[in-house]
Amino acid sequence: MNRREALKLMASGVAATAVAELPANVSGVERVERWAPYEIRLTGPATGNPFADVVVSAEFTRGARTVKVDGFYDGGGAYRVRWMPDELGEWRWVTRSSTKNLAARSGSFVCVPPQAVVGSAPNRGPVHVTDRFHFRYADGTPYFPFGTTCYAWVFENERLQEATLTNLAWYGFNKVRMCVLPKVFDAGEPERHPFPRSNGKLDFTHFDVEYFRHLERRVADLGTIGVEADVILFHPYGKLWGYDQMPQELNERYVRYVIARLGSLRNVWWSLANEYDLLKGWKTSDWDHLFHVIEQADVSTHLRSVHYSKGMYDYAQPWVTHASLQTYDFDKTAEWKQAWGKPIIFDEVQYEGNLWRRWGNLTGEELTRRFWMAVTAGAYCTHGEVIACKGAKDGLSADGGVLLGESPARIAFLRRLVEETGIGLEQFQDAYYRSAGRPGELYLYYFDFHRPANYAFPLPEGTRFRAELIDPWAMTITPLPGTFSGKSELDLAERPYQVVRFRKV
Amino acid sequence: MNRREALKLMASGVAATAVAELPANVSGVERVERWAPYEIRLTGPATGNPFADVVVSAEFTRGARTVKVDGFYDGGGAYRVRWMPDELGEWRWVTRSSTKNLAARSGSFVCVPPQAVVGSAPNRGPVHVTDRFHFRYADGTPYFPFGTTCYAWVFENERLQEATLTNLAWYGFNKVRMCVLPKVFDAGEPERHPFPRSNGKLDFTHFDVEYFRHLERRVADLGTIGVEADVILFHPYGKLWGYDQMPQELNERYVRYVIARLGSLRNVWWSLANEYDLLKGWKTSDWDHLFHVIEQADVSTHLRSVHYSKGMYDYAQPWVTHASLQTYDFDKTAEWKQAWGKPIIFDEVQYEGNLWRRWGNLTGEELTRRFWMAVTAGAYCTHGEVIACKGAKDGLSADGGVLLGESPARIAFLRRLVEETGIGLEQFQDAYYRSAGRPGELYLYYFDFHRPANYAFPLPEGTRFRAELIDPWAMTITPLPGTFSGKSELDLAERPYQVVRFRKV
Repeated sequence: MNRREALKLMASGVAATAVAELPANVSGVERVERWAPYEIRLTGPATGNPFADVVVSAEFTRGARTVKVDGFYDGGGAYRVRWMPDELGEWRWVTRSSTKNLAARSGSFVCVPPQAVVGSAPNRGPVHVTDRFHFRYADGTPYFPFGTTCYAWVFENERLQEATLTNLAWYGFNKVRMCVLPKVFDAGEPERHPFPRSNGKLDFTHFDVEYFRHLERRVADLGTIGVEADVILFHPYGKLWGYDQMPQELNERYVRYVIARLGSLRNVWWSLANEYDLLKGWKTSDWDHLFHVIEQADVSTHLRSVHYSKGMYDYAQPWVTHASLQTYDFDKTAEWKQAWGKPIIFDEVQYEGNLWRRWGNLTGEELTRRFWMAVTAGAYCTHGEVIACKGAKDGLSADGGVLLGESPARIAFLRRLVEETGIGLEQFQDAYYRSAGRPGELYLYYFDFHRPANYAFPLPEGTRFRAELIDPWAMTITPLPGTFSGKSELDLAERPYQVVRFRKV
Repeated sequence: MNRREALKLMASGVAATAVAELPANVSGVERVERWAPYEIRLTGPATGNPFADVVVSAEFTRGARTVKVDGFYDGGGAYRVRWMPDELGEWRWVTRSSTKNLAARSGSFVCVPPQAVVGSAPNRGPVHVTDRFHFRYADGTPYFPFGTTCYAWVFENERLQEATLTNLAWYGFNKVRMCVLPKVFDAGEPERHPFPRSNGKLDFTHFDVEYFRHLERRVADLGTIGVEADVILFHPYGKLWGYDQMPQELNERYVRYVIARLGSLRNVWWSLANEYDLLKGWKTSDWDHLFHVIEQADVSTHLRSVHYSKGMYDYAQPWVTHASLQTYDFDKTAEWKQAWGKPIIFDEVQYEGNLWRRWGNLTGEELTRRFWMAVTAGAYCTHGEVIACKGAKDGLSADGGVLLGESPARIAFLRRLVEETGIGLEQFQDAYYRSAGRPGELYLYYFDFHRPANYAFPLPEGTRFRAELIDPWAMTITPLPGTFSGKSELDLAERPYQVVRFRKV
C-alpha cells in the first residue's frame, strides 16, 4: 500500500456499501494488489453498543483455501471487514453475521502482483522470520531491522508527526516502536484517546473511531516510507487514565478491535506490551491468553512479541515469533538464540541523550557501539533518543519529532553495510575478536573497546579476500591494496571501535 | 626497613655468626625496629643437600608468648632464621635443630618503635585487613591498594629494574604483583632461576641462593619506596623449564623456602599463584594444601590470596584473606562482598596497551574508568600496561620498565582523592547512580558512561555539604559556590565519566 492508497482508504468518512470500492480497474473486474488492504464495507445497526453487540466476519475463498476474518464497527452504522490477500488469483468472499443486514453479502476480486509506485516504498509484503534468526519480506527480500522508538508520536501535534516521518525517511530507520494507548508525557492531555470520554472519564466499552482512523493513517504513512510499525498494544504509562485497570474482557475486545482495523496493513507487527512486567496486576497467564487472542484473530500472522522491563518473558513460547529484549548484555546472544531458536531484537539498549535518568543519557558513540555489538552478535537493535534542550520540547524524541543525536547517521551507515552483505550475519563463536559474517565468504571484525596495533586475521587458506578498514564513527571505508589468504596480519588504527571487513574475491 | 637497611641485610655474603648483627646500637643492647627484619646467622654442614636434609628453627619468646620460626640454608654452610618482631619490648630466642652446630644457640634483642628515615617510606608495619572490606597498616594507618603488575621485573636487565622502581615511585602505585618463578617472555632465557641449572636442566631439589638474594633485595627496594610486594609463588608461564611438572613435595619445600627467606619483610603479600587454573595437572586440594603450608610457615600472617584466569577460587575459604579477581564485572562486587566478607581487589581488569591480545589493548580512558568502577564499588583495582613500540622492548611493561600509558597519572589522581577521604569507601546500594562514600559525610558520585545534563542529588536533609565537580581525566576539581542540603539539582558537564563529590561542611 502506498501513501495515497492509504489516505484514500483511511480518510473515507462517507457512507459505505457492501462492496469493496478500491482499487478497481475500468473493466469492472476488481483487482487488488497482493499484500494490499482489501476492505468490505457494510451498513448495519447504529443503536445500542455495536462495538460489543454486533459480530460480523467474512470468509475469503480461493480453491480449497478459506480464510475467515473478523470485521469491526466503524461508527455511524458502518461496518468493515479488512484483509490483506496473500495469494495471487481470484478470491470470492461471503459475510457471516447474526445481524440481518450484515450477513450473506458476497463479492469477489482478483489478487494481482504488486506494482511499483513512484514516491512509495515497494510493496514486498509483510515481514516474516527466515533462517531461524533473521527476517525477510514475503517476496523473499531480506529485511534487517534498524528501528527507533516513537512511542507516543501519534499523540503529538501534526507538525511533529510530519517531522517524525521526515526524520525517519532521512535517517533510514526501517522500524518504529509505537503505542496505541497514550502515555503520560510532557505535552499534556492527548487530543483523542482510543476510547471516548464521557464526563471526563474514558469509556472502555466503546472505541473512538476518529482516533483509530488517525492511527491507521499514521501506520500507513510509515508503510509508504518503508518503515515497519511495531505496534505496542499495552504499556504501564497510562495509569493516569486507568488503562492499567481495564478488565481482561475489555482488554481482549480492544486487542481484537485493533487487529480487525490494522491487521490488513502489511507493515504491522504486534508488540503485546512495552515493559509488560510493570503492569503489576497482570498474571503471566493473562499475557499468554492475549497472545492466543492475537494468534486466533490475526489471520495474516504478523510478527508477535512482547517487551519487558526487568522480568523477561519466556521467548521460547511457540506463539512468540522473536525476542524483544531490554538489555545490553550482548554476550548472552548466542546462548539465547540457542535456547529460543528465534531472531533477537535488542529493542531497548538505553537512549542517546542527556536526561537525568540512567537509561536516557548515552553518548552517540556508545549507542553506535551497542548497535555494532548487537549486529555482530547476529542480532538486531533499536535506537532511541531523549535529548532535552532547555525550553525546547522537540528534542524529547523517543516520542518522535526532530532527532538531534549523533548516532542515527552512524546507524544508517551500519545498515548500509549490513544490507550490502545481503545476508543475516551470524557471529563466529570461535573467533578471538568479535566477528560475524558467513564462513568462507564474509568476515566482519568489530574490535569494540580493543585497540590492538595489529592483528593476524585467521582467514581460510585457499580463498582470496579483499580487505577494508572501516571506521564506524567517521563512516569511512578504506580498501587495502591486494588480496589476503590464510593468516594475514594487518596494522590497525590503535583506537577503539575499529572494523575490518574481508570479502571473498 | 629502609633501602639501606635492606641492602646491608641482603647483600651480605660474608661468613655469619650465631648472633644477629644488625641493627645494633653502641651500648651493646641490640635494638630492632618493630616490623623490621631480624636475622639469626648460623654456620652448619655444607655437604649433602642441606636444603632438604637440614632443619633449623628458632623460638622467639617474650613473656608468655613464643613464636617458632623456620630457618633456611643460604649456601656455603650458612644458615639463617629471619623474623619480623611485631611487639615492643625484650625478646629472647633459642635455636632448635637436630644438627649439632645449629641447635641451642640463643640471644636476645629489644624491639623498639620504628624511626623515620630520610628517603625511605615510613615503617608502618605489614598491611592487614580492617573493617571487613578494607586494609590498613599494622600501625593503624589506612592503606588503599592502587597496584600495578611487574610480573617478571626481577628477571629484566638492571637498567629496567631501576627504571621500574623510578616509575613506581613517580606514578604513585603502592602495590606490585611480581613473580618468584620466571615466565617465558621476549627477553629470552633469564640470567638466573630460583633453582640451579645442571646439564641445561633445572635441579628443583636445590635452590639458587644468589637468585634469592637478588629477589630479596628487589622486594626490599619496593618497601623503601612504600610499595607492597604481592609475591606470586606459582604461575603457568614456566612450562618451557618444567615448572608446571614439579612434584607436590618440592612445591611445598619451595613455598617453605620462599617464606623463610622473605617472610620477615613487612611489605610482602602471598599470591599463591597467578592464573592458578591454567596449571592443568593440579587439583583444588593441592592449592588448599599449599595455603595450609603458608598458614603454618608464615608466622607474620601476611595477606594471602590466589589469582585465577577463568575458574574462580573459593574466596570464602578461611585461609584466604582477600579476593584477587580477574574480571571487570564490577556490578557483582556487592554480591561477592556479601558472600565472602572480605576485601576485593580486581587484580586484573585487562591492560592499557596496543597488543593484539584481547586483554592487552585498552585505552587509557577505559582503564581509568575501570579503576573508578572498582573503587566506587567499594573495592580495589590493579593497573597493567602492555604497549609495544616497534623495535622498543621497554614498552612491554607488565613486566616492569618504562610506562608509556595515559592511565597511571589518572590512577594516581584517584588514589589522592581516596586517601584524602581517609576511609575505605562503600557503595551506596540504594543510589540511583553509582555512588560511594560514607552516609551523612561523603558522597562520591561516578556517572560512568552516563552524561545527564543535570541531576537532583538526594543529599540528606539537615546536613550541609560542599560540592565539587571532578573530571577524572583532566584531573581537575572544581568547587561549586555555596552549600547544599536535601535534594540538590546541579548542572553537569554532559560528557561521560564525570564525578561529583559532596563533603559535609
